[in-house]
Amino acid sequence: MDMIATTMTREDVTAMIIQAKKQGGLTWEGIAESIGMSPVWTHSAAMGMNAMPSDKADALVSTLGLAPEASAILQESPTKIWEQTVPTDPCIYRFYEIVGVYGPTLKALIHEKFGDGIMSAIDFDMTVSRVENPKGDRVKVEMSGKYLAYNCW
Amino acid sequence: MDMIATTMTREDVTAMIIQAKKQGGLTWEGIAESIGMSPVWTHSAAMGMNAMPSDKADALVSTLGLAPEASAILQESPTKIWEQTVPTDPCIYRFYEIVGVYGPTLKALIHEKFGDGIMSAIDFDMTVSRVENPKGDRVKVEMSGKYLAYNCW
Amino acid sequence: MDMIATTMTREDVTAMIIQAKKQGGLTWEGIAESIGMSPVWTHSAAMGMNAMPSDKADALVSTLGLAPEASAILQESPTKIWEQTVPTDPCIYRFYEIVGVYGPTLKALIHEKFGDGIMSAIDFDMTVSRVENPKGDRVKVEMSGKYLAYNCW
Amino acid sequence: MDMIATTMTREDVTAMIIQAKKQGGLTWEGIAESIGMSPVWTHSAAMGMNAMPSDKADALVSTLGLAPEASAILQESPTKIWEQTVPTDPCIYRFYEIVGVYGPTLKALIHEKFGDGIMSAIDFDMTVSRVENPKGDRVKVEMSGKYLAYNCW
Amino acid sequence: MDMIATTMTREDVTAMIIQAKKQGGLTWEGIAESIGMSPVWTHSAAMGMNAMPSDKADALVSTLGLAPEASAILQESPTKIWEQTVPTDPCIYRFYEIVGVYGPTLKALIHEKFGDGIMSAIDFDMTVSRVENPKGDRVKVEMSGKYLAYNCW
Amino acid sequence: MDMIATTMTREDVTAMIIQAKKQGGLTWEGIAESIGMSPVWTHSAAMGMNAMPSDKADALVSTLGLAPEASAILQESPTKIWEQTVPTDPCIYRFYEIVGVYGPTLKALIHEKFGDGIMSAIDFDMTVSRVENPKGDRVKVEMSGKYLAYNCW
Amino acid sequence: MDMIATTMTREDVTAMIIQAKKQGGLTWEGIAESIGMSPVWTHSAAMGMNAMPSDKADALVSTLGLAPEASAILQESPTKIWEQTVPTDPCIYRFYEIVGVYGPTLKALIHEKFGDGIMSAIDFDMTVSRVENPKGDRVKVEMSGKYLAYNCW
Amino acid sequence: MDMIATTMTREDVTAMIIQAKKQGGLTWEGIAESIGMSPVWTHSAAMGMNAMPSDKADALVSTLGLAPEASAILQESPTKIWEQTVPTDPCIYRFYEIVGVYGPTLKALIHEKFGDGIMSAIDFDMTVSRVENPKGDRVKVEMSGKYLAYNCW
Amino acid sequence: MDMIATTMTREDVTAMIIQAKKQGGLTWEGIAESIGMSPVWTHSAAMGMNAMPSDKADALVSTLGLAPEASAILQESPTKIWEQTVPTDPCIYRFYEIVGVYGPTLKALIHEKFGDGIMSAIDFDMTVSRVENPKGDRVKVEMSGKYLAYNCW
Amino acid sequence: MDMIATTMTREDVTAMIIQAKKQGGLTWEGIAESIGMSPVWTHSAAMGMNAMPSDKADALVSTLGLAPEASAILQESPTKIWEQTVPTDPCIYRFYEIVGVYGPTLKALIHEKFGDGIMSAIDFDMTVSRVENPKGDRVKVEMSGKYLAYNCW
Repeated sequence: MDMIATTMTREDVTAMIIQAKKQGGLTWEGIAESIGMSPVWTHSAAMGMNAMPSDKADALVSTLGLAPEASAILQESPTKIWEQTVPTDPCIYRFYEIVGVYGPTLKALIHEKFGDGIMSAIDFDMTVSRVENPKGDRVKVEMSGKYLAYNCW
Repeated sequence: MDMIATTMTREDVTAMIIQAKKQGGLTWEGIAESIGMSPVWTHSAAMGMNAMPSDKADALVSTLGLAPEASAILQESPTKIWEQTVPTDPCIYRFYEIVGVYGPTLKALIHEKFGDGIMSAIDFDMTVSRVENPKGDRVKVEMSGKYLAYNCW
Repeated sequence: MDMIATTMTREDVTAMIIQAKKQGGLTWEGIAESIGMSPVWTHSAAMGMNAMPSDKADALVSTLGLAPEASAILQESPTKIWEQTVPTDPCIYRFYEIVGVYGPTLKALIHEKFGDGIMSAIDFDMTVSRVENPKGDRVKVEMSGKYLAYNCW
Repeated sequence: MDMIATTMTREDVTAMIIQAKKQGGLTWEGIAESIGMSPVWTHSAAMGMNAMPSDKADALVSTLGLAPEASAILQESPTKIWEQTVPTDPCIYRFYEIVGVYGPTLKALIHEKFGDGIMSAIDFDMTVSRVENPKGDRVKVEMSGKYLAYNCW
Repeated sequence: MDMIATTMTREDVTAMIIQAKKQGGLTWEGIAESIGMSPVWTHSAAMGMNAMPSDKADALVSTLGLAPEASAILQESPTKIWEQTVPTDPCIYRFYEIVGVYGPTLKALIHEKFGDGIMSAIDFDMTVSRVENPKGDRVKVEMSGKYLAYNCW
Repeated sequence: MDMIATTMTREDVTAMIIQAKKQGGLTWEGIAESIGMSPVWTHSAAMGMNAMPSDKADALVSTLGLAPEASAILQESPTKIWEQTVPTDPCIYRFYEIVGVYGPTLKALIHEKFGDGIMSAIDFDMTVSRVENPKGDRVKVEMSGKYLAYNCW
Repeated sequence: MDMIATTMTREDVTAMIIQAKKQGGLTWEGIAESIGMSPVWTHSAAMGMNAMPSDKADALVSTLGLAPEASAILQESPTKIWEQTVPTDPCIYRFYEIVGVYGPTLKALIHEKFGDGIMSAIDFDMTVSRVENPKGDRVKVEMSGKYLAYNCW
Repeated sequence: MDMIATTMTREDVTAMIIQAKKQGGLTWEGIAESIGMSPVWTHSAAMGMNAMPSDKADALVSTLGLAPEASAILQESPTKIWEQTVPTDPCIYRFYEIVGVYGPTLKALIHEKFGDGIMSAIDFDMTVSRVENPKGDRVKVEMSGKYLAYNCW
Repeated sequence: MDMIATTMTREDVTAMIIQAKKQGGLTWEGIAESIGMSPVWTHSAAMGMNAMPSDKADALVSTLGLAPEASAILQESPTKIWEQTVPTDPCIYRFYEIVGVYGPTLKALIHEKFGDGIMSAIDFDMTVSRVENPKGDRVKVEMSGKYLAYNCW
Repeated sequence: MDMIATTMTREDVTAMIIQAKKQGGLTWEGIAESIGMSPVWTHSAAMGMNAMPSDKADALVSTLGLAPEASAILQESPTKIWEQTVPTDPCIYRFYEIVGVYGPTLKALIHEKFGDGIMSAIDFDMTVSRVENPKGDRVKVEMSGKYLAYNCW
């Protein structure tokens, strides 16, 4: 089965990106800038949680000096899998907790402002930034998703 | 056990608030404004997911014409419980999905911008707003939480 | 807490609809026709899994002779909850099984025909019909949902 | 244990098919057409979720230039396993959500149109197609399964 | 909500059947015989796990002297729910264990005798009997279900 | 750790049996006959879900031409493990469904015919056969287990 | 549904036994002795985890002065249900822990002493006693269950 | 990482013990006797569920002719892990069932004989023996654990 | 079943204590002091997670003016149940997180300081205190449990 | 993929630390002292549950004679994962049990002493020590975390 064993996988590409980032002393912000995209989306696509358009995949391969066949893999539609129903990492868990505590509130206010519907997680973008504050700097997360109304038929 | 049966519970207070809101034709935005707080926090405290300072609890009781003993209950430190590990309501699920898909990205960018630590979900605030867009209006969610660095000792 | 105890709930409205349907010897198809909507959507809204526009809610109340306050409840944005992660009823389980067996196929073909994205379950409609067949009649289920492309930003 | 290590598995065959599809720049629709079957069934059998009749297995091996012993493996009755009780991939999750939200409706309407029974997921077929729409193209999924009545004995 | 509170439910009918059986000193075998059906099916329908044809429902109501409105309820298509994913009662658990230990064997032998398909659990019947044996009497369970072949399309 | 790496495991023996069966074009029924046992038990022991007496293990090794050390492994008392609490394969799931739907019925009828106790899943045997039927052939499964009465002490 | 509401349940009988035990200042050991059975079995049957033969049920009713209809209920074959897959009470958890830590050891030694089989949990008895010990008294639990050999057929 | 790859693990030591036992035609009882410990404890420590004192570890290494570095590993404090919350192997499951059925009884009798507390699973020992019986030999399991009273402070 | 309905339960006693505490404007620290015990233990026993010695139960009844029969209930050995395997309340979750992150460290250091064993959670006490700190006051939790060595036998 | 295969991982570094500790006959207390940190934090960082500042990572590498590239890995922000929702190891389980039994008490007393908020698990430190006691030495665990008040906005 040699033919199969030598095929490059998404996990390989992710590992190569992380290694290139370390060796080049790069940041996600820098990598994102070099391909003209946002850091959130760039990191997410590098981790295999989003597919890249071909020009962005080529740009990433070129920027980081990856093997050329990595570009095709970065363009594939990934199957998004997370293993932990409740994430254990404290940094990620806090966001899970926010969904648990404020989920009904998000639903109520979307309903109040828009009607019966949801915020899309597909036609969606997000930024993370640092806000200086004398009592301790704050993490700011801004999410924006298209409002989708329930259909009646 | 009559003495116990007649005690007002948090669930009673939540139900009374929802009924008063309906009967008065109010909005969460309006209720929040009348007590000088944000809509997210006001809805959350009304649902029993946050405790109110005494002046805010009194203001809510007065605004909505609730029974006076409701104020003390609104000031209690609630035990925050959500029954569904994975929320089934589509509107809330989408936020769960965002945590699953973008959780590792949030962690990586917080690390890049701040160091090894987390965004607090306690020293935390959030807003929900509507952004007009010719391709369809968008839901904007802004979260802000204090950065907490891991301790070394 | 008398004030609260006498409030009508969604469960009450669902029960009243089912009772009126039985007593009137009605069908879902007939009820749907009388309010000018599809049977799938009508049953779903009657069960509390979709919100009704006000004219349709009024029409249903009038058709079935429900208490007038039921209309407001039918218009509320419901919190959609299903208790069983894996449904045990054999009729519903078969659809769960189809998602398990053919889920990756649905994903692959949506990808092939549209690109990286999903079928919306919100901007969505569905019909159920009976197709005569000499080897045994068949159930036909047709789903239609708007294609949503993943955002790149 | 060399004898065992060199045995071809279903996972190997699936990997070989995907590799041949990539290298040949093929589509599932094209592969299906070349063996005279539907794209849904063809993809599903290629993924190891359905068994192929011998002529179709031979045709696939020939079309894609696979190793000859792959044909026998494609004809085996596969054990259908999905790891995730609740699928995390957003594209597949939406179908799970549809089963959760509309499962009781599907049951009620099958009952109304046929009597007490189910739609078979075995004597079953499905198509996926793209429907143009000025408000955004739509995914259309058509399922057809034999009605099976419960036995009384 | 008086109208609703007095509605008879399936749980009520099941409870009435059990009470009538106790008071009359009856057996499931005897009840089944009096309505001309098998004991397995009769018990299952009495527990709300199968729907009765109208003549059998009327016969049961008449035999046991139930309230007349029970007949309509016995004819409804029940939603089959079992709460325990793994049954704890030792008598039921042993059957779960048999499925765990011999499930792959049942699959392999059905495949060998019929081809790629399943035994239907809908077009299905079952008997339970006692077989005398000098080493200790034995429980005999006989299941019969229609073979369903997977569809290719 | 070479010494360990070359030890034959149960998984190896199962794989060798399946390979020998394929290469010899054998059936489970034929293999069972050649060692003088039933097909259900033979398949189950081959899969590592039952231990073989030494003469049967030797007979199987001889019939299939397995490596001689496989006999000792076939005689070991296996630890019976199934990974899926709810089996996903449709053929096996149908039996799980039967336990869910008819479990309480099996319990009630065993109680009625024997008293308070269970059917043993250890002192147990089972057959699978094909029954011709003009409406479609049927799978017949016959289980027989010793009745065990609960002890009182 | 008055007829149903006044039916005595197993939970009622258990509650009546506990109340009678408290009011009479009795012990389980004393109650067991008065009906001529062991304390383990007596407590278990009183909790609804075992069925009583009629003479023992009558004796318990007489000893504790229960309502006469309790005897029939104590003789019913109970459905044994425990809610917690992993028990949280520390006293019960320790036994669960023993099964986790020593389960494979129990299996290995039963195999060594008897052959391939199990210890019955049905033809089973158990005692609990106190053993004085200068370093702190010890709980002694003795279990005895019939050995059951796996069947070969 | 060669240095790491050649390190002996607990799993290696367990595998070596099992291999030595097979090759020597030994029993757990015999091995236990040769190191002057009980069979339950000896098997448990060999499986990595208990740590051995150094003299016993040396004795085991010497008795079975294991590699000398195995002794240090046998003396390590193991992390006790069992993968299955509910064990599937029938022999082990029966003990889980006993905890489910009789857990509340064990708690009640410990309370009656000692007061509010538990039986330790740490300061604990256990034996397994065979008791001849004309109706079928019985497995006898004797557990002894120190009583620990809850602290009040 | 009037006799049963009027029996006081642990839940009643807990509710009465909370009500008395509120009405009297008391603190857990004050209540604990008045019965001469620690706040942690007093709260825990009041919640039904520990049993009280008779003098402490009488003291609590007298201090809070509870109904006299509450004393006997406070002395019963409670069955300790927590519903949430993973606690959702953020204040309690943080302690769960500490066990997840530092559990292996606690084990390693107990092993290093004592040998192979555990810290008892039964012969155990705990205090909670407030420590002033210019960067923000700190919660201090001190746990003390008897070391228990694993038995070798 | 050779480039990837030779990359050092966190698991490798943890394994190297454990091996160096064994070979050097060191203790966690000794290692901690040599880098000027506490044993709890040092062990936790060595296990990959905390990130090290660069000077401490270099000190550890130097003290234990690790490969130089280990230092960079020890400084990375680790993703904290624990596999077992309920830990099975008895030593760790006891701490889980304490959270289950005393969690509501910890919450109530933090509320009483500070107000509505939590103890941080991030700005957190812990010590483990041995306290001599004539009745048996005790494990003392001291936790200290910054109090964080819920935000109102």
